[in-house]
Amino acid sequence: MRAARYHARHDIRIDEVPEPELRPGTVAIDVAWCGICGTDLHEYLEGPIFIPPAGSPHPISGEQAPVTLGHELSGTITALGDGVEGLEVGQGVVVEPYIVRDDVDTGPGQEYQLSKDMNFIGLGGRGGGLAEKIVVQRRWGHPVGDVPLDQAALIEPLSVGHHAFVRSGAKAGDVAIVGGAGPIGLLTAAVLRASGLTVYVSELSAARKQMARDTGVADDVFDPRDGDVAQKVRDLTGGRGADVGFECSSVAPVLDMLLDAVRPGGVVVNVSIWGHKPEVDLPALVLKEIDLRGTIGYANDHPAAIALVQNGKVDLAPFITARIGLDGLITEGFEQLITNNEHHVKILVNPRAR
Amino acid sequence: MRAARYHARHDIRIDEVPEPELRPGTVAIDVAWCGICGTDLHEYLEGPIFIPPAGSPHPISGEQAPVTLGHELSGTITALGDGVEGLEVGQGVVVEPYIVRDDVDTGPGQEYQLSKDMNFIGLGGRGGGLAEKIVVQRRWGHPVGDVPLDQAALIEPLSVGHHAFVRSGAKAGDVAIVGGAGPIGLLTAAVLRASGLTVYVSELSAARKQMARDTGVADDVFDPRDGDVAQKVRDLTGGRGADVGFECSSVAPVLDMLLDAVRPGGVVVNVSIWGHKPEVDLPALVLKEIDLRGTIGYANDHPAAIALVQNGKVDLAPFITARIGLDGLITEGFEQLITNNEHHVKILVNPRAR
Ligand SMILES: NC(=O)c1ccc[n+]([C@@H]2O[C@H](COP(=O)([O-])OP(=O)(O)OC[C@H]3O[C@@H](n4cnc5c(N)ncnc54)[C@H](O)[C@@H]3O)[C@@H](O)[C@H]2O)c1
Ligand SMILES: NC(=O)c1ccc[n+]([C@@H]2O[C@H](COP(=O)([O-])OP(=O)(O)OC[C@H]3O[C@@H](n4cnc5c(N)ncnc54)[C@H](O)[C@@H]3O)[C@@H](O)[C@H]2O)c1
Repeated sequence: MRAARYHARHDIRIDEVPEPELRPGTVAIDVAWCGICGTDLHEYLEGPIFIPPAGSPHPISGEQAPVTLGHELSGTITALGDGVEGLEVGQGVVVEPYIVRDDVDTGPGQEYQLSKDMNFIGLGGRGGGLAEKIVVQRRWGHPVGDVPLDQAALIEPLSVGHHAFVRSGAKAGDVAIVGGAGPIGLLTAAVLRASGLTVYVSELSAARKQMARDTGVADDVFDPRDGDVAQKVRDLTGGRGADVGFECSSVAPVLDMLLDAVRPGGVVVNVSIWGHKPEVDLPALVLKEIDLRGTIGYANDHPAAIALVQNGKVDLAPFITARIGLDGLITEGFEQLITNNEHHVKILVNPRAR
Repeated sequence: MRAARYHARHDIRIDEVPEPELRPGTVAIDVAWCGICGTDLHEYLEGPIFIPPAGSPHPISGEQAPVTLGHELSGTITALGDGVEGLEVGQGVVVEPYIVRDDVDTGPGQEYQLSKDMNFIGLGGRGGGLAEKIVVQRRWGHPVGDVPLDQAALIEPLSVGHHAFVRSGAKAGDVAIVGGAGPIGLLTAAVLRASGLTVYVSELSAARKQMARDTGVADDVFDPRDGDVAQKVRDLTGGRGADVGFECSSVAPVLDMLLDAVRPGGVVVNVSIWGHKPEVDLPALVLKEIDLRGTIGYANDHPAAIALVQNGKVDLAPFITARIGLDGLITEGFEQLITNNEHHVKILVNPRAR
């Protein structure tokens, strides 16, 4: 079958690879759609980061570059391995793309995203969504019911937003400010709005401000060039400030704005991945007793994220901004995101199309 | 009466000032002892910081420099204003030195330390512990029972440590690592140890490492020059890491060490006050889903801190490293702390002595 494989920085190839084997406890999936994520882009431009480079196999998967890419994938079950329960051939599923040790408990309340040497399917090995087929452990397959498979490919980043929401401890009626309206900021805002919060978004790009408005994920959208965003949030909350902030830009002044915009005793969740150690306004964190919380991935968030879409509380369709075949991955996918990022949210790849 | 007043940076004078007046709802106290705090030193060397400078009266107290200094004070009640209940003349008390608006609720669970324009008695006005007498609102007087009044002057910084412990959410059996063993780090460690935690301390100064050992507040003391402290903590916890960390040094590498030393899902409480925005290892915060929590002062922590001393769980006596009279404030107090800080924990001033 055909698969997009990461060989090295700036070297992603469409290779012919063997089909994955069905084993006991696994399910075979024909991939329908796979989204391109900012992380894939970072691997292409600056990696390998999560990807185990040639010569350094990953301690759990045992694999190293070249590896198949793609971790935002949906598809249809084609076969069930021995002992698999609760799934059926023909069902639409989204893959929760974790690589964790077999003995790691992934039951309710378990923090398996923090388990030692955790990595992601589609980065650390075990196949990926940018291939025609994939075989995954039963626990990583989540049925999506009547959610169309193109939208289902966005359940993964939506689950990132859901996990950030859970980490924040926020509840209906709270006021949130989201810094950065890229895919992650927009989908985090979507979860917050669907969960009954008032949501303000800060963003620089005109296209993304428009997207935040058009999709209805934000009650209001601010541009830091138009004046002090934190002050606007205070003005809108009777001087109090937001209850929670979400850093989704990887830009230090945005984090400081959030520390300024939340109320004393408030929470700021840092969703963004930093390539360096930013300067942080700890004086504000101390004097206002703010909780700054990291969040990585998801842990039992997929079912809740799927339910938000099934119940019509989140409409993922507007966030799909392009659909391409596997051969266009670099030119119509990666290059588009590099040169024209702000006009895209999610580019979906059909790995079974040319 | 005599009082040490802050006029401006490097200008603290022993002035003759009027005695404070007893008003309804207040209690009059003859000050017994007052500790010198790092904050006082910062005001002397680099201030005014918390102190309202001449021309900028504090919005609640209405006062401005010169103001009486001293916020770590104990004393004996000499008179009760109209309507004061639950206190008696002759009782030993410690003062919780807050300046907050009269309508701020200071009942159980209230976060009055975060109320707007909060400041401290002995910095923002309303008298101070470096004077013979003080009058405070009833709610700020906490009876100390049989705790000697010299030790009672250390209840204030002990309450800072207690509040940091409460903010951490830690519990008996947890493992803590404290970065920096100045007065705040030592007293935080004392609260943690008294609360049933295993406590590791990291410190550079030989005298302070010795103090942490001799007072028994630490199960073990590490020096970062002797090897990777975070790795030592992991080695001592079966590879897991500490449950909680406490930043008490205002040194960025110490904060990063704590982010490294705590386990995935762990908590780091930032107790130190920063004069700048430090670079923080947010990559670690994100990948380990750490909670970094600010803490300021105390809020209903004094009774619990007093109980720790009354029950014999914390012995404050060893932390008193000198006793001086008011006239020695600069030469035997501030100058000692500037030139010989590491050999002191708490210098106590008797403002009724020369
Ligand atoms: N924690 C996790 O599990 C997880 C998962 C996926 C992605 N991420 C991270 O989330 C972050 C966001 O991802 P993305 O794909 O949405 O990135 P993105 O780069 O597409 O979006 C960032 C947005 O921030 C905006 N921005 C930049 N400077 C700004 C400013 N000063 N004020 C307001 N907005 C500003 C940009 O215009 C852009 O729209 C990345 O760091 C990514 O690595 C984290
Ligand atoms: N949050 C609050 O309410 C509150 C209240 C009082 C004080 N504080 C703050 O707490 C902090 C500590 O106060 P303090 O009076 O104990 O200060 P201090 O300066 O006496 O103590 C700091 C200690 O850190 C040690 N240290 C420095 N570099 C180190 C390193 N690399 N590794 C290990 N140890 C190192 C020093 O040797 C020193 O002993 C200050 O920032 C102070 O302003 C906060």
